[in-house]
Amino acid sequence: MIPQVIWPNDMWMHTLAKARELDAKDVLKNKRESFALPNNKIYLDGNSLGPASYAAQTAGQSVINAQWQTDLITSWNVHDWIRLPQIVGAQIAPIIGAQEDCVIACDSISINLYKLLHSALNLQPDRHVVMTQKGNFPTDGYIAQGLMAHRSGVCLVYVDEKDIIAQLDESIAVLMLTHVNYKTGYMLDMRQITQAAHELGILVIWDLAHSAGAVELSLDNDEVDFAVGCGYKYLNGGPGAPAFVYVNSRYHSQLRQPLSGWMGHARAFAFEQDYVPADGINSLLCGTPNIISMAVLKGALTIFNDVNIADIRQKSLGLSAFMVSVIQQHPVLQAFELITDMDDAKRGSQIALAHPDAYSICQAWIEQGVIADFRAPNILRVGFAPLYISYCDVLQAVDRLAYIMQHKTYQAKQYQIRNSVT
Amino acid sequence: MIPQVIWPNDMWMHTLAKARELDAKDVLKNKRESFALPNNKIYLDGNSLGPASYAAQTAGQSVINAQWQTDLITSWNVHDWIRLPQIVGAQIAPIIGAQEDCVIACDSISINLYKLLHSALNLQPDRHVVMTQKGNFPTDGYIAQGLMAHRSGVCLVYVDEKDIIAQLDESIAVLMLTHVNYKTGYMLDMRQITQAAHELGILVIWDLAHSAGAVELSLDNDEVDFAVGCGYKYLNGGPGAPAFVYVNSRYHSQLRQPLSGWMGHARAFAFEQDYVPADGINSLLCGTPNIISMAVLKGALTIFNDVNIADIRQKSLGLSAFMVSVIQQHPVLQAFELITDMDDAKRGSQIALAHPDAYSICQAWIEQGVIADFRAPNILRVGFAPLYISYCDVLQAVDRLAYIMQHKTYQAKQYQIRNSVT
Repeated sequence: MIPQVIWPNDMWMHTLAKARELDAKDVLKNKRESFALPNNKIYLDGNSLGPASYAAQTAGQSVINAQWQTDLITSWNVHDWIRLPQIVGAQIAPIIGAQEDCVIACDSISINLYKLLHSALNLQPDRHVVMTQKGNFPTDGYIAQGLMAHRSGVCLVYVDEKDIIAQLDESIAVLMLTHVNYKTGYMLDMRQITQAAHELGILVIWDLAHSAGAVELSLDNDEVDFAVGCGYKYLNGGPGAPAFVYVNSRYHSQLRQPLSGWMGHARAFAFEQDYVPADGINSLLCGTPNIISMAVLKGALTIFNDVNIADIRQKSLGLSAFMVSVIQQHPVLQAFELITDMDDAKRGSQIALAHPDAYSICQAWIEQGVIADFRAPNILRVGFAPLYISYCDVLQAVDRLAYIMQHKTYQAKQYQIRNSVT
Repeated sequence: MIPQVIWPNDMWMHTLAKARELDAKDVLKNKRESFALPNNKIYLDGNSLGPASYAAQTAGQSVINAQWQTDLITSWNVHDWIRLPQIVGAQIAPIIGAQEDCVIACDSISINLYKLLHSALNLQPDRHVVMTQKGNFPTDGYIAQGLMAHRSGVCLVYVDEKDIIAQLDESIAVLMLTHVNYKTGYMLDMRQITQAAHELGILVIWDLAHSAGAVELSLDNDEVDFAVGCGYKYLNGGPGAPAFVYVNSRYHSQLRQPLSGWMGHARAFAFEQDYVPADGINSLLCGTPNIISMAVLKGALTIFNDVNIADIRQKSLGLSAFMVSVIQQHPVLQAFELITDMDDAKRGSQIALAHPDAYSICQAWIEQGVIADFRAPNILRVGFAPLYISYCDVLQAVDRLAYIMQHKTYQAKQYQIRNSVT
C-alpha cells in the first residue's frame, strides 16, 4: 500500500504497521470473503446500504431461477415462502437480543412504526402524547404526524436527545426514539431510558435502523417494549430489504393495529369475513410478503450465523477510533470538525465530520474509490461495517481524503447535489 | 398429443383439430417463448402467481449481481432506483387505461387500500359508510375494519355483488369493490357502477387484483376515482411483487393519507421535521421501496410492451369458453358444476368448477402436471393467462382431468388440505 500524500515524519510507516497488526489480530477478518465487494473500492457507507454477500446473491438466484420458475405457486408450501416473515424474524432475533417469536420481518420501518404507534396508544387509553427526539430520522415523526391527523387528541412533542429522561412525565403515552442518530451517530442509553420511561408508565418504541447488526442489543433483557429496524443497512439484506418488528412477549396478547391485512389473520386461509388477529407477533403481518426481497434478506443473514455481535461492536469501535486518531494527526485534515461523541457508550458505528465543503469532498472521495455519505448541510458521514472493512481500508481511505484536501480536488469541479437514500 | 382417456365417438380428433386451428391463428402464440415455464406442466394458476419470464429473471440477476454488487449506494442515482415506483407505475398505466402519472407501484394491496380508504373518507367529511361486496377477497374488508377501529363513526356494510347499484344511497362515502371475484370469476361493470355511484356523490375504490393484465380496463375513460392492483398475478412480477395504486388526476391535489413516510414527502431529501405531501400520486409513497422486487416487476412488465390487452382479453375468453365446452361434452366430467357466469361481460379470466372433492381433485390434477387452485369449500379454480397458455394446453388439461375422474385417482390417497396464497 503506497500513500498518495506525504505523511509527517514516520507517521505513515508507524500507522500502517499498526493497521496491519490490528488486521492480523481481527477475529472477523475472514468474513470479508463472504462479500461480493467491487474491486478498488473502500465502502464506508454500509450504514446506508450494506453490500451484496455471495449468500444473498445465491438466495436471490435460487428464489428467482429455481423456486419461482420451477415450483411456481406450490413454492408457498414446498419452499416455505409462507413462513419467511417468521423465519427471517428468528434469524434477526439473536442479533438484537430477542426471543425468536418476538421478531417478524415485514413491510418497511415507516409502516411498522405506524402499526406500533397505534398498538402502543391502544395500550394507553388515558394518555395522548407521543414524544420523540429532535433530529430523529424524519420518517419517524412523519408517521406520527400522519396518525395524529385521524386519531383525535394525539399530539407529538420533540425533545433534545441529550435531555430525554428529564423531559419525561406521566402525560406521555409513547416515547419513540431512534437508538443511534442517523446523522451524528449519537447513541442513546436504551436500558436507562426504557427504565426511566417505565417508571412513569410510558411505553417506548425504539428504531434500530442504525444499530441492528452493528451494536450489541439486549431487547429482552432491557425490557424493551417495541422496536423496528432495517434489513438493508448493517444486515446487508439488499436495497429496500424488508424491515423487522420486535414486540416484547408481554404485549403479544394485546396487540391491535389497524393495518389488519389477511396475512395477520388468525386463520388467513379460512377467508372469513371478519378480521381476527393472529396470535402474538404474527398479527403485525398485513399483505402478501415480498418473497424475492425476503429470500435475499434470509440469505444475507446467514453471514451472522457464526458471528458474535460483541466482536462486531468491538471492531466497529476500534475502526472508528483508529480513523479519528489518524485524521487528527494529519496536518491537512485539521479542517474537519468531529461531530460524533467518541464516548464508546454514546456512539454507534459511524462518525460525522463537519466541513463547509462536505458535499464536494464526499464526491471527490468517491472518485478516489472511497464511498462515504453526505448529510446536509455539512456532514461527511462515515460508516464502519466490521464484517468487511479492515484497519488498512480505513488508513487508505484517510490517505485518499488527505490527498483530496491537499490538492483541493474537490474544488476542481462543481458537484451538483443529488439525493441519496439514508 | 395422445389422450389419457377414451373420448366419445370422434370427439378427441375433432376437438384437437379445433385447438390446433385456434392456436395457429393465435396472435399471442409467440409470447410463450418469453416465459421460463417448467417442462411438462400446464399452468392454470397464473391468477395466483404468474410465472417467471426471462425478462424478469434477467432484471433480478442485474439488480442483485450487477447494480447492487458493483454500484452499491450510488445505484439510487446511477440506476434510477429512486424513481422505480414511478417508472413501474408508468409501465402499468397503459395496461389499465390510465395516464402515466396516475399510477405508482408500492407496498401491498392491503396497505394501499388503507391509504385510499383514508384519502377517500377525507374527501367525504359528511359521510361515514363504506360499502363493499359480500365474498370480496377478505383483506379488503379487514383493512376497512382496521380503519374503523380508530376512525370514529365509520361503518362497513356488505352487499350482494349482483345487487350493488340498487343498494347505493347518499349515506355512502366510499364503495370499495373488487372488479373480478377471486373465487367465482364474476366481473362487475366498472363503468356502470362508477357512474351510478357518482350520481349519488359516492367515491369508488376498485381492487384490480384479478383483472389487471387479463381484462381490458379504461380507468381514465370510465372516470374511476381510485384503484389498487397486484403485481404478482397476471402481471407476472414475481412472488409478493409490489402492488400499484391508481388515483384519478382530479384528486391529485387533495390526497391526504396517514402512512406519510419520508418517500412521500414533497422534499424527501431535505429531512425536514414536518411532513409535507409530495405532489399527486407520489404522496402515496411511504417507506423505502423494495428495490429488488421492484426491479423484477419492471423486467416482467416489458412483456406487455408489444401486446394489445384486447388480444389478451379475446384469447382469455376463448380459452375459458373452450375449456367449458369440452368439459361439458365429456361424460366423465359431468359431476362438475360450473359456478362462473359465462356471459363475457360478467366474467374475468378464470372459471370455477364446484365438486365435493375439489381439493383432492386439485391435488391429483397437480400430480398429472396441471396446476390449478382450490378455494374452500368446494371450488376448483382454473385461471387462463393468454400470454403462455394455448388451446392445446387446455385440451390436454381437460383430458388429464377426465383421467383423474374416470380412474378416481383423487380418492386413492388422503390429501391433507394445505394453505395456498391467492
